[in-house]
Amino acid sequence: MEAPFIVIIASGSEITAGRSLDTNSGWMANELFELGWKVKKFITLPDDPDLILLELQTLKRLAETRPVLVLMTGGLGPTEDDYTLETVLKLSGKKSYSVEKAKIRLTRIYESRGKQYSDILPTVIRQTHVPEDTKTLDNSVGIAVGFVEPIGVDSYLVCMPGVPSEMKEMFTRRLVPELKRIYPRENLVQKTKWLWNIGESLYQKDFVETHRDRLFQDVEWGVTANRGYIKCIFQSTDSKKLEAIISELETQYSKIISDDVFSFVHEELLSKNLTIAVGESCTGGLLGKKLTDSPGSSSYFIGGFLTYSNEMKEALLSVPGEMIESFGAVSKEVASAMVEGIYQKTNARYCISITGIAGPGGGSDEKPVGTVWIGLKTPDGSIETHSYIFPGNRESIRENASNTALFLLYQSLKQRKI
Amino acid sequence: MEAPFIVIIASGSEITAGRSLDTNSGWMANELFELGWKVKKFITLPDDPDLILLELQTLKRLAETRPVLVLMTGGLGPTEDDYTLETVLKLSGKKSYSVEKAKIRLTRIYESRGKQYSDILPTVIRQTHVPEDTKTLDNSVGIAVGFVEPIGVDSYLVCMPGVPSEMKEMFTRRLVPELKRIYPRENLVQKTKWLWNIGESLYQKDFVETHRDRLFQDVEWGVTANRGYIKCIFQSTDSKKLEAIISELETQYSKIISDDVFSFVHEELLSKNLTIAVGESCTGGLLGKKLTDSPGSSSYFIGGFLTYSNEMKEALLSVPGEMIESFGAVSKEVASAMVEGIYQKTNARYCISITGIAGPGGGSDEKPVGTVWIGLKTPDGSIETHSYIFPGNRESIRENASNTALFLLYQSLKQRKI
Repeated sequence: MEAPFIVIIASGSEITAGRSLDTNSGWMANELFELGWKVKKFITLPDDPDLILLELQTLKRLAETRPVLVLMTGGLGPTEDDYTLETVLKLSGKKSYSVEKAKIRLTRIYESRGKQYSDILPTVIRQTHVPEDTKTLDNSVGIAVGFVEPIGVDSYLVCMPGVPSEMKEMFTRRLVPELKRIYPRENLVQKTKWLWNIGESLYQKDFVETHRDRLFQDVEWGVTANRGYIKCIFQSTDSKKLEAIISELETQYSKIISDDVFSFVHEELLSKNLTIAVGESCTGGLLGKKLTDSPGSSSYFIGGFLTYSNEMKEALLSVPGEMIESFGAVSKEVASAMVEGIYQKTNARYCISITGIAGPGGGSDEKPVGTVWIGLKTPDGSIETHSYIFPGNRESIRENASNTALFLLYQSLKQRKI
Repeated sequence: MEAPFIVIIASGSEITAGRSLDTNSGWMANELFELGWKVKKFITLPDDPDLILLELQTLKRLAETRPVLVLMTGGLGPTEDDYTLETVLKLSGKKSYSVEKAKIRLTRIYESRGKQYSDILPTVIRQTHVPEDTKTLDNSVGIAVGFVEPIGVDSYLVCMPGVPSEMKEMFTRRLVPELKRIYPRENLVQKTKWLWNIGESLYQKDFVETHRDRLFQDVEWGVTANRGYIKCIFQSTDSKKLEAIISELETQYSKIISDDVFSFVHEELLSKNLTIAVGESCTGGLLGKKLTDSPGSSSYFIGGFLTYSNEMKEALLSVPGEMIESFGAVSKEVASAMVEGIYQKTNARYCISITGIAGPGGGSDEKPVGTVWIGLKTPDGSIETHSYIFPGNRESIRENASNTALFLLYQSLKQRKI
């Protein structure tokens, strides 16, 4: 079977008015990419039934010439401006019916709040409706039922709720197995590695171009730029080819390569009963925030110090005033004194300090905007310091600095492990 | 003249693969909304010249029936997969030429790096090219020149770079004046107010529905949900009508209404030479991060304490252990003791503490997940505490808590001002 022409539609006037960002389409495209499917087009439409119908009619006509898969989110809610079901019924000329299982679930939810079926508004009941002769997709998070409507030979229109948590659960648990059944294909393997503080174009030139002929046959690759790191993605049906690439990548970039730093740091600190504390200047709390993003972080994150001013570096972390005077607040010496101060106050096994110039002001020829010193005290008592000049604006420099601090922690945890 | 049918196109395979999020389209739609224009459709396409051409041909055909305005970003860069210029030349049957001004600018940039014109790669020079007979849009941030290509009666295809900083500058400085000239229209006035910790649907029912007949004639309204607050947007050509709505809104929601809290807090702390320090438990640094997002925040943000563990609440902020024992770490008493401790250690004029249960674990019947106490010590020495039960997941609760803390600060600063 020919691979389907995949189109993702997001409906919602709040998106086309620029008041809300559609993250569903990108999320689905990424999931599909990992399954080996490439999306050909995203479309976003306001809650306008005429425009939606016009678009679906165009796609249905396209399905007369080749397999088409349309994934649409939004418009299945209980408000006036939810038009998806109505539009699909117009498109297909079908009638709708209420899915018994969903109706029972809805009734139970109302009963648990001390209400009964007759209290439920018709627009809420409408959410349990789907067109006749469709494959239904259960919603285990919310109310609205999803469905897969045939629109041609090997062609389908999938309608799902726009609430991300409902859509994601439905996509992963209900839709993906269905898609694998409808469009059977070879299993694609994917590998991802992160490289730190290196540009996308330099990586392409030094790695992809250099090894293209030898390593990249039948391998798809992609790269995405993030704050402080790039993600290198490789896909193939041949896992040996991927292994060869990863091995070459690990040799060439041994000092700056990592897996997912955020999840590794979390898992490792948690499972090894380690503790950590931080002292932040230019990042103002961003490192602490990142270290406490995951549930369970209270097991390892003890606390920290936001020593934004020089006075606070002295008062809270006992950094000598003369040291700040002589070397400047953004210096190897101060980064080192900060971690020592954090350790004295918290006794945490790992201590991290960050001091830098986030800009836009405060830079000099000697220490330009973006200059950041990071200090790390490890459980063996040793202190290491690293300096960087991060590119970009204030936000970018702060993100770079806190992510890179986590990468240094990752490297230390990784060495411990070996 | 009939209002144009506006379509925004973003091109980029990294977007349709889900590796990068298109924020350009939403940004432009929002800017256009404030100018009184509504966007009918967003389209995102991979870097595939055939798909792009097909789409532009379809839109050019639509322009035979009505005015169409297409705003396209991306594909003007110097790499192999930048196809915008080539595609537009195919669409129009025109030739391109190099814009003299842009070529001079490019040469100067190369000369400043000690290189000469002959060093510039042809693909880089291509960025200075535009189709003949178009209105050019100067790029004062990067290299690639934008242009406005006529595609029918009162219909235009605008091509701009995909780099957000280049596009935004070009859009605001070059394109908007051009659009106002091409599509003259009445001046639209817009007012925005924020309401805190109230649901979108409750606001719609209690305010919009209640006053619809009396206040909303010839007024467009919108509402967007954010973390801790909703933004209420009103537009009209009649500024008196907007004033009547704002006045009603301020009366009905006097305790929870605000303007942009983030910019007000920044401006006010800065201009009044005030200082602030924080102590954060469940937010782990997020409040400090938000208070230091803006350049210049070092003038008022002294520092803070990330007292994530109970031990650190005692050690760093002198919260009595028996108090934590008796009332729990998430309590009015501890929030109050925390701000007092922050003040003792920093002498900041404003001190804010946050202690709460961000979840998903740690909740109880008495204190469910989402329970947060916020303490605020003001320059007159008084301490106020507020409790909330914030909805949503861990991330949402942490965002809600830190934003609401800034709202409390806003209210206190506002009262001082009066």
